[in-house]
Amino acid sequence: MAAAPLSPMVGSGADTKRASPISAVLVTNGDVDHVAGLLTLREKQAFTLYGTEGVLGIIADNPVYSVLDPACVTRVPVLKGQAFVPVPGLDVEIFPVPGKVPLYLESDAVDIGAEGDMTVGVRLTAHGRTAYYIPGCAFVPEHLAKRVSGGDVLLFDGTVFEDDEMARAGVGAKTGRRMGHMPINGDGGSLHAFDGLGIKDRVYIHINNTNPILVTGSPERGIIEAAGWRVAHDGMEIWP
Amino acid sequence: MAAAPLSPMVGSGADTKRASPISAVLVTNGDVDHVAGLLTLREKQAFTLYGTEGVLGIIADNPVYSVLDPACVTRVPVLKGQAFVPVPGLDVEIFPVPGKVPLYLESDAVDIGAEGDMTVGVRLTAHGRTAYYIPGCAFVPEHLAKRVSGGDVLLFDGTVFEDDEMARAGVGAKTGRRMGHMPINGDGGSLHAFDGLGIKDRVYIHINNTNPILVTGSPERGIIEAAGWRVAHDGMEIWP
Repeated sequence: MAAAPLSPMVGSGADTKRASPISAVLVTNGDVDHVAGLLTLREKQAFTLYGTEGVLGIIADNPVYSVLDPACVTRVPVLKGQAFVPVPGLDVEIFPVPGKVPLYLESDAVDIGAEGDMTVGVRLTAHGRTAYYIPGCAFVPEHLAKRVSGGDVLLFDGTVFEDDEMARAGVGAKTGRRMGHMPINGDGGSLHAFDGLGIKDRVYIHINNTNPILVTGSPERGIIEAAGWRVAHDGMEIWP
Repeated sequence: MAAAPLSPMVGSGADTKRASPISAVLVTNGDVDHVAGLLTLREKQAFTLYGTEGVLGIIADNPVYSVLDPACVTRVPVLKGQAFVPVPGLDVEIFPVPGKVPLYLESDAVDIGAEGDMTVGVRLTAHGRTAYYIPGCAFVPEHLAKRVSGGDVLLFDGTVFEDDEMARAGVGAKTGRRMGHMPINGDGGSLHAFDGLGIKDRVYIHINNTNPILVTGSPERGIIEAAGWRVAHDGMEIWP
């Protein structure tokens, strides 16, 4: 996730004509879908890169990320529970969620649902409103339900609708849970995991291309909408 | 660069429903604009990855590329001067061109114009016709001019029109030559470096966004067209 600045970017040696308006990036996970985009932000673009020590360690272990010139990009480790202000007016805090290590670092014994610093959620507070961003979550423990209670917006892991939909579609052997993603539907799904917690707006993000909620008018879209969820889309504004 | 298969892809455990038609990829350089796209070809897509030992070594040094599952993606080192057939009917050979190491591996003393296995050109022969693909080249030594003589198509490094255009545009301090890319115009430029060699079609590729040849109708576009060059574009067919 990335934050646009509230003031013009002032970079040391930055390419201000071709630079993006992004002044801060927070990576919550070391998987390729979270870190590959950093390569697109290369060269001479000034921003601050925030992440857990674990995720920044993964990035440091890949020399290709040296294209993020240290003269322009400062890497700042953030600790769970210690709020920080990446851009004026935006208060951010990370917290652990059940996940797993990135796919490309998996060993034979993968601890699905481990809470460490490889998979985290984010609290974002601005103008007195709070959003929670949780793109990967293996299940919802009580401490997580309690944490997001009363939030204005919950952006939550909508990878698969059914746990076994990838196998059923013939595109892979893994279940959602094996990938560290709880399904939307079925026992222990996310569909009703946040009911009654006073969350004003619930939005599915991180949606796999096998997930039928992507199809407007599908029965599954109807099911999630009836349960109070929306489907995220490019350009969506969460605080209209 | 990537090659489409002439026969249906048969992958071991490959995801045939979501896979691309790409069955072979040859990387000619370890810079991010050459290797970042491999991450997009991840997961359970079967293809063969060809490259020099140097470039494949760079990829091996970055754990993030483990997303290219060894069960699906075979990495095959290729040697200069030893032709290979990545897909039936396509004969390919790599050859050294003056270049440099990737930006993110630069040390204090960068040997611009070094010929090693970090920057190579490619000969592609199919249906009796031959194309040369050279996306990065610091200058044109005699052996290179001789090699591409009589080719049907030359796809050549068109990064910058003027050596100092990035500084003049205010987007960077480096010259084209410092980046290992000879300019099109001026002394020692590529514009006339291949004149009189009997090459039927000359096409600029790898064009930086400061290069005015990208603008239809620009004086610089007129200059290269008058000299017998074309500008590559997405979807271009080189053998109509």
